[in-house]
Amino acid sequence: MTKPFKRILFTGAAGNLGRRLRDHLHQFADIVRLSDAVDFGPAREGEEIVIADLAKREDVFKMCEGVDAILHFGGVSTEQPFEPIMNANILGTVNLYEAVHKLGIKRVVFASSNHTIGMYPTTTQLDASMPVRADGYYGLSKVWGEALSRFYWDRFGIETVCLRIGYCFPEPTTHRQANTWLSLDDLVQLLHRSLVVPCVGHTIAFGVSDNPGLWWDNRQARFLGYAPKDSSARFPEPLQGPVDYASNEDITLKHQGGQFLINGPKYPD
Amino acid sequence: MTKPFKRILFTGAAGNLGRRLRDHLHQFADIVRLSDAVDFGPAREGEEIVIADLAKREDVFKMCEGVDAILHFGGVSTEQPFEPIMNANILGTVNLYEAVHKLGIKRVVFASSNHTIGMYPTTTQLDASMPVRADGYYGLSKVWGEALSRFYWDRFGIETVCLRIGYCFPEPTTHRQANTWLSLDDLVQLLHRSLVVPCVGHTIAFGVSDNPGLWWDNRQARFLGYAPKDSSARFPEPLQGPVDYASNEDITLKHQGGQFLINGPKYPD
Amino acid sequence: MTKPFKRILFTGAAGNLGRRLRDHLHQFADIVRLSDAVDFGPAREGEEIVIADLAKREDVFKMCEGVDAILHFGGVSTEQPFEPIMNANILGTVNLYEAVHKLGIKRVVFASSNHTIGMYPTTTQLDASMPVRADGYYGLSKVWGEALSRFYWDRFGIETVCLRIGYCFPEPTTHRQANTWLSLDDLVQLLHRSLVVPCVGHTIAFGVSDNPGLWWDNRQARFLGYAPKDSSARFPEPLQGPVDYASNEDITLKHQGGQFLINGPKYPD
Amino acid sequence: MTKPFKRILFTGAAGNLGRRLRDHLHQFADIVRLSDAVDFGPAREGEEIVIADLAKREDVFKMCEGVDAILHFGGVSTEQPFEPIMNANILGTVNLYEAVHKLGIKRVVFASSNHTIGMYPTTTQLDASMPVRADGYYGLSKVWGEALSRFYWDRFGIETVCLRIGYCFPEPTTHRQANTWLSLDDLVQLLHRSLVVPCVGHTIAFGVSDNPGLWWDNRQARFLGYAPKDSSARFPEPLQGPVDYASNEDITLKHQGGQFLINGPKYPD
Amino acid sequence: MTKPFKRILFTGAAGNLGRRLRDHLHQFADIVRLSDAVDFGPAREGEEIVIADLAKREDVFKMCEGVDAILHFGGVSTEQPFEPIMNANILGTVNLYEAVHKLGIKRVVFASSNHTIGMYPTTTQLDASMPVRADGYYGLSKVWGEALSRFYWDRFGIETVCLRIGYCFPEPTTHRQANTWLSLDDLVQLLHRSLVVPCVGHTIAFGVSDNPGLWWDNRQARFLGYAPKDSSARFPEPLQGPVDYASNEDITLKHQGGQFLINGPKYPD
Amino acid sequence: MTKPFKRILFTGAAGNLGRRLRDHLHQFADIVRLSDAVDFGPAREGEEIVIADLAKREDVFKMCEGVDAILHFGGVSTEQPFEPIMNANILGTVNLYEAVHKLGIKRVVFASSNHTIGMYPTTTQLDASMPVRADGYYGLSKVWGEALSRFYWDRFGIETVCLRIGYCFPEPTTHRQANTWLSLDDLVQLLHRSLVVPCVGHTIAFGVSDNPGLWWDNRQARFLGYAPKDSSARFPEPLQGPVDYASNEDITLKHQGGQFLINGPKYPD
Repeated sequence: MTKPFKRILFTGAAGNLGRRLRDHLHQFADIVRLSDAVDFGPAREGEEIVIADLAKREDVFKMCEGVDAILHFGGVSTEQPFEPIMNANILGTVNLYEAVHKLGIKRVVFASSNHTIGMYPTTTQLDASMPVRADGYYGLSKVWGEALSRFYWDRFGIETVCLRIGYCFPEPTTHRQANTWLSLDDLVQLLHRSLVVPCVGHTIAFGVSDNPGLWWDNRQARFLGYAPKDSSARFPEPLQGPVDYASNEDITLKHQGGQFLINGPKYPD
Repeated sequence: MTKPFKRILFTGAAGNLGRRLRDHLHQFADIVRLSDAVDFGPAREGEEIVIADLAKREDVFKMCEGVDAILHFGGVSTEQPFEPIMNANILGTVNLYEAVHKLGIKRVVFASSNHTIGMYPTTTQLDASMPVRADGYYGLSKVWGEALSRFYWDRFGIETVCLRIGYCFPEPTTHRQANTWLSLDDLVQLLHRSLVVPCVGHTIAFGVSDNPGLWWDNRQARFLGYAPKDSSARFPEPLQGPVDYASNEDITLKHQGGQFLINGPKYPD
Repeated sequence: MTKPFKRILFTGAAGNLGRRLRDHLHQFADIVRLSDAVDFGPAREGEEIVIADLAKREDVFKMCEGVDAILHFGGVSTEQPFEPIMNANILGTVNLYEAVHKLGIKRVVFASSNHTIGMYPTTTQLDASMPVRADGYYGLSKVWGEALSRFYWDRFGIETVCLRIGYCFPEPTTHRQANTWLSLDDLVQLLHRSLVVPCVGHTIAFGVSDNPGLWWDNRQARFLGYAPKDSSARFPEPLQGPVDYASNEDITLKHQGGQFLINGPKYPD
Repeated sequence: MTKPFKRILFTGAAGNLGRRLRDHLHQFADIVRLSDAVDFGPAREGEEIVIADLAKREDVFKMCEGVDAILHFGGVSTEQPFEPIMNANILGTVNLYEAVHKLGIKRVVFASSNHTIGMYPTTTQLDASMPVRADGYYGLSKVWGEALSRFYWDRFGIETVCLRIGYCFPEPTTHRQANTWLSLDDLVQLLHRSLVVPCVGHTIAFGVSDNPGLWWDNRQARFLGYAPKDSSARFPEPLQGPVDYASNEDITLKHQGGQFLINGPKYPD
Repeated sequence: MTKPFKRILFTGAAGNLGRRLRDHLHQFADIVRLSDAVDFGPAREGEEIVIADLAKREDVFKMCEGVDAILHFGGVSTEQPFEPIMNANILGTVNLYEAVHKLGIKRVVFASSNHTIGMYPTTTQLDASMPVRADGYYGLSKVWGEALSRFYWDRFGIETVCLRIGYCFPEPTTHRQANTWLSLDDLVQLLHRSLVVPCVGHTIAFGVSDNPGLWWDNRQARFLGYAPKDSSARFPEPLQGPVDYASNEDITLKHQGGQFLINGPKYPD
Repeated sequence: MTKPFKRILFTGAAGNLGRRLRDHLHQFADIVRLSDAVDFGPAREGEEIVIADLAKREDVFKMCEGVDAILHFGGVSTEQPFEPIMNANILGTVNLYEAVHKLGIKRVVFASSNHTIGMYPTTTQLDASMPVRADGYYGLSKVWGEALSRFYWDRFGIETVCLRIGYCFPEPTTHRQANTWLSLDDLVQLLHRSLVVPCVGHTIAFGVSDNPGLWWDNRQARFLGYAPKDSSARFPEPLQGPVDYASNEDITLKHQGGQFLINGPKYPD
């Protein structure tokens, strides 16, 4: 069967999502180029591997050379001190889009995050047009990536689908994780649609399965035709046990960003 | 199995919904305290019974003493002359929230009504942010309860889920009833979610099953994770028979409140 | 010169606004009927006086007999315990609208209040379509009046202009008072427009002069043609003196309702 | 079984949809009157046939005489030079509504078109309240029909459901066709609901099945109770094959109107 | 002084606005070409005159030849039977835009009308994004012109400013006329801005002075920099005299279109 | 007279706005601390000078020590290669807010820019809730500052007023400059209001005078009470001279960001 692309690039291949997605990427292209900042073993069949530091312009250009489309999952993916986030996620995306632009690449799928909107209360229904409210340096760096890619669309016509990915691990165990859960299969479907649908412009989509209690409305990205097949409803009810309303004071329960709120910049001691 | 609460209070136990819900409340708490203004027989296992006149402050305080959460279904539930509605539904909710506040109770589920918005045309799609348009004294008293509970949240942090309950009887027989139908199972689910979801703040949710032709959009309350399992589509089509467009002039067909429009304050003779 | 009406009724004539408006009402009608619950001296030329308890149906009917339009400023106008507010403002408006309806009166100007929305933050711009957020029993009773008059419009075609009056005293001395100030002349203009403009339906308008820093947008009521001539900018700057950001924690500064927030229902001792 | 109506009129009976719908119309009425500008053979049982030129006032009056409701599918249904469109679709609808009005007919179902909004980008989610953006003379003539029928509702109380029909052919073969596909069964259901639901006023509904990637939100018409049973997801994936981002420059891919954009008025040679 | 253009075309020169504007057009161009369907006397200095029937394609092409911009005020400007409106306003605008397109003209100022939205209640605040609700054939023909010019912008990049002109006569004498009044000077300013502001795309602006009680919000067209200098507040108060609420039943008072509502298609006798 | 503060910090003192504002800052505080990365001469009376590199954490902490409020105008203020912008505007604001947070400073006025929204068309009316669309690295760095300060408000209660400053030079000479002009006096007023109004939370305000043709609506920040006294209407009309519609293709005319669009990242050669 003919594949959609000849060669795609997946960055962040050594990360959690990179490792889980690796075997699913072959359906998209004859050659899957995998990249990360650290060595992660040898290429398998149909793969190419490029070790690249996103903060280094020349590394990034080399990494992007000759690809048809990019799935950009690379960079820091947890709350960290600012310097590494700045290097990998801010300078890194600047380098990436400069390469994309100069090399004539036409579409990027950017792994953004729900932490761009993590400070919204858990009682608020969001859609992609609402102002960002990041919950720490990590979330802010994803705000940066979304704004930067918007600029490259508005100014140069380079298309990006920004996926605000939820909790993408095999099994949710808390209320928040169940609410924001994204199954691997649904993520793969979302990547597929983001790559093949014609004319996506600059789109922000929430990467989330069809869970009960969703905070996020994918209305603006409905044209992608993403139709999640999974739901966290199939997991044991994470709201079991005695209800303790006192916990309502916990900021990780009150805000969509959850635990990230206390991993970021701290109150002074 | 551990239950969510030690003791909950259900008011209005002798009413239509009270009687139908009675056997379903045990899943929520070790002890279900039932209350009404009139005697409704003896307590069963796991129950406590308190007879209380909502218009009497001391009755209400006694009724609320020692409970973890309240399902407030008490008061007048049909269109009536103003005095009884004022006593039970206006003064009654003032007494209730004063008790809730003074006794340190943290959450109420309030049985509001679609009659808060009964004057909207049947061609209008509503959500919880739209201005109320009550269809009579009863609907107005529910507007009062919603506004009062909003105040207690804004000012004192007491949480309330206001359920604008539709037609909650076993079988709908008219177009309007089918459109606004709420199955008992769906109501139980909605009560469950309203009680156990952390951080509900002040929420208005429409209590309605997954019927065709819904007038109401529960978007703002989606975080509750309420997922109706029933639909009035399974009942015999209530739009059968010859269509008579002349009936379009009937105000009970043109407005969402239906029959309540002609049960309330009347045109002068 | 011909006056707009033969006879209008002004309720609440003994109150602050009643006393200040008394000499300005003659432009509206040949006969100004003044009413209050308490004696306030003899009628002057062109006046009629009716002492009436709003909670008494027969008083209210007598008070309304034979008038062309009503300016309803009567009832409790400060934060109070619930019982007097219920009698004058809740039962009182029910009686009023029943009389209006039965007697064939076609338009009411209702003195509502900014305390219907007093719990909104002072950083929020409001318009008349936004959900109410009252700041105490008084504000809630005005929510009641707005909802009740809406019903009488939707159901029976009786027109009401609800004026959410701001700070209507001669001279503002705080930031909040300057922001919400309404001059007497502007109030008179607003009453005039509310009475004479054809087809007002049910309208909510903010009664406020053209002050700097307005929280309220009168867009939906612009058709009234109300064009405030005064502004609190002419008063000494109420933001003088050293800035103390610590006061930002003061709930009367953070919410539009100001001082009313601490006059209403209290935290338990 | 009793049918909803005694006699309905279906115009455009010789067209694509007319021929496919013909056998499905009997469920709506005892007598189905079929009309077109050209001869299309003899009447079958339960049918009446009236040949009528929509541009001729007397033809139209004769065609409408004695019917209970009208399904107006007649007129030009493809992009054409302006003159035939003006005669059939503009003058034709003026004649139709004059007849409807004079003859006391109370409801019309009008076959409008997605080409009323064909100039919107394919990345935009639409609902019925958004301004029209037609993609040629044909689409503009449907804008005319929607505006004309709105007038007849606002001014004379004649009800119309405007169906913005998508791609209604047996099998979609392109991305756009799959996205906008309407199955025949879903169309029949939509006609049924449009005819029998009480109080439809003037409603614009998108005639589309439950396809992935929908551009159109039927929220405002949800009260019709239309629940599509089909989805284009069952057809072979129309996004197969190698992705060619260069095609993103194709205006028929970038706009919802697709091929119609290049069938209409042309750039000068 | 250099003028903005070498040659502009003004159609409808023999009409009310044409005659009043005639002496004001010279500021826009060295040569003002005036056109109408009927003879209106000889050209003055700096003028050219072309008699043209808008319904005739060749007339329209001749009329448009060699102009830099068009002020299209021609066609029928009152409620009339449909045929003349169709010829002049529907076929006429089709011919005009075909000429504009083929001849390479880049901008049109189109005299639309408030009768495109005349069925809105007088209590409703409108802006340009709200759906049209015409009040008769004339208003519908202006809806047509707005939609047609939108198409020519979306598809071919031809710019149009549609002016929904209010009551443009020397002196308003009714409430509605005062509310919708446009002074000649303000109209001239609006024409100037519509012609000279760079990049207007397709814009709908309300042609109205700075009157009290405006129903229309020009927010979306604010970029034009139109700043009305006149107000109907300077005329004698048109709301004088005794108020008669019974007149509220008059449809010409309840709807923005006023008198046009009863000049258009009629109820059957 | 008592001044609002004891000591305020103004960063960017050697820049264009810094030099023009310098003499106006004394009204805000007894001591004005001025800071920049480069030497700009000796302190005058009532001033303190701190030379600080925003990219150096310790510099920034020293600069902020002991101040009551900060006017942050420092950093790069023109389109530049990314590295200097990253250091001064991204790392610089991170350092600043960390210092603010650790040192207990409660309010910042942040000089943001209209280049955060420079890619919007000049025909679009904006308000502060609309998604950002930056026009280059500089604009993106201001998006960063707005998002970072939002986080510090949401998470730690530190207040910031972000001023999206327009064209703040003595005299506008182009259409865009006239449209976005901010007079020095209006800027001073805006700084004053931003400093002294209680409870500003996180606010985005457009820094612009009362010019004709404004693209920006300050509705959400109206509570600041900013009332511009100047208007670019007093300058010679910048739209003089012959109109050349061909220039409509110029991207600096089509987008709000103007010249910045071609100073930023370029198309590949």
